[in-house]
Amino acid sequence: MNHEFWFKEYHSKHHGLFFRIEKILFQKKSRYQQIDIVESPIFGKVLLLDGLVMTTELDEFVYHEMLVHPAMTFHPSPQQVLIIGGGDGGTAREVLKYDDVRHLVLCEIDEDVVTAARKYLPELSKSFDDPRMELKFMDGVVFVKETPESYFDVIFVDSSDPVGPATVLYSEEFILNLNRILKNGGIAVFQSESPFTRLDIIKDLFEKLKLTFKYVKPYLASIPGYPDGTWSFLLASDVNYSDMIRNHPEELKYFNEEILKASFALPNFIKEKLYD
Amino acid sequence: MNHEFWFKEYHSKHHGLFFRIEKILFQKKSRYQQIDIVESPIFGKVLLLDGLVMTTELDEFVYHEMLVHPAMTFHPSPQQVLIIGGGDGGTAREVLKYDDVRHLVLCEIDEDVVTAARKYLPELSKSFDDPRMELKFMDGVVFVKETPESYFDVIFVDSSDPVGPATVLYSEEFILNLNRILKNGGIAVFQSESPFTRLDIIKDLFEKLKLTFKYVKPYLASIPGYPDGTWSFLLASDVNYSDMIRNHPEELKYFNEEILKASFALPNFIKEKLYD
Repeated sequence: MNHEFWFKEYHSKHHGLFFRIEKILFQKKSRYQQIDIVESPIFGKVLLLDGLVMTTELDEFVYHEMLVHPAMTFHPSPQQVLIIGGGDGGTAREVLKYDDVRHLVLCEIDEDVVTAARKYLPELSKSFDDPRMELKFMDGVVFVKETPESYFDVIFVDSSDPVGPATVLYSEEFILNLNRILKNGGIAVFQSESPFTRLDIIKDLFEKLKLTFKYVKPYLASIPGYPDGTWSFLLASDVNYSDMIRNHPEELKYFNEEILKASFALPNFIKEKLYD
Repeated sequence: MNHEFWFKEYHSKHHGLFFRIEKILFQKKSRYQQIDIVESPIFGKVLLLDGLVMTTELDEFVYHEMLVHPAMTFHPSPQQVLIIGGGDGGTAREVLKYDDVRHLVLCEIDEDVVTAARKYLPELSKSFDDPRMELKFMDGVVFVKETPESYFDVIFVDSSDPVGPATVLYSEEFILNLNRILKNGGIAVFQSESPFTRLDIIKDLFEKLKLTFKYVKPYLASIPGYPDGTWSFLLASDVNYSDMIRNHPEELKYFNEEILKASFALPNFIKEKLYD
């Protein structure tokens, strides 16, 4: 055999990640984006949207646990939960581990992502059959605009990055609507980029969220498949949450109480950028 | 211009990092290894040994601060300090920020690394002119064997990875000698690989260190230029250190008291591997 398949993702014009591809399981140009699911030796199955790594079997547990469990263990009673994006199902899987949850809306613009995840990523998408789950295939911007106020306890913005189609999810109007549809004490969490090479983008979203929410707290997790291997999240609320008040689900692979505390500790270079 | 220079590092046979090269500043095949120093847009100047990224301007502060400051802020009186490897000078730079330090031995097998760092990496190698500094160009294994017992307070093993030439630095005999030449209450710190794809190697070194030291504590830091972007360290001592007892130097870029605490928090998948 003298051929090999490789995937390359440019994290900037000047650097990136490459990995070997064993098989291409699925490819489709949907109405919104190019969807690929590939099989690779180190990362396992990988979902790509417009050629960017969205989730990999190697590290999806980190991303999904760390997006979900800080807010879910902070909130006193997370009954109504919304996910914007998250069409692979991993975020929903983590949310549904809490018995408090009565109604989980997943608002994904691209039904083809969900269909592909159901078929090729069952470990993530199995949550879609939970009776508490409601799937809406529509634009998150429209959904939050049309939702009556004070409906949700927790909202996860599990979108692609704030460049390209997801830019609207980082607009002031969208953020105002998030706050409007959150109940008192509600929490919104955004995934938000690499602090090493995209700290300006984090700073920008941090400042925007602070215009609307009283408390905005950045936290970090290790995700090898994402640019630079360290990812940030922003947790926004009008309540100053900082302690776990509810047990987390058992059998998590990354999250625990010490990790929760640790994830909010910021290196000096990030603190200086965000707080000066 | 229709040509480009790129560097690729394979982190396994199946994945790795690539980045653009603007200039090759230095290349030499020394007696021990291939040394390259290149200039790149995102990472800045990068030192490569046998084609592997040792240190980059983008993230060297993380590696050097996190290798050094946990042990230096734990130890009650770090006066005699040893670095095995560390020929670029970054580790020495951090150690010399403490006034307690009276004598710092840097034992680097390859003088050509030091010569190249002096010329091309002055921000790291400037510490070499400190009068407390003693440079020894010899094999670390021989040096620790010949050192009288109970001489050092803190030892940093700042070597290349435990495959290839540095394998001897992970042998039982070497570890026994480290403990022998440490004073009572002394601390040894090893850099120790990516927990995502090389957890077996960490486990192996962890078990070896536990045969000799009463307490071995793993901790983590975010380093984009290293495999998978998250790196581990092992801190070994016969004393159960866990609190900072001395102020850290001012103007660090990564390390602070919360980060120190946070770095010892381990994700479940690492805890389960190391402690079951």
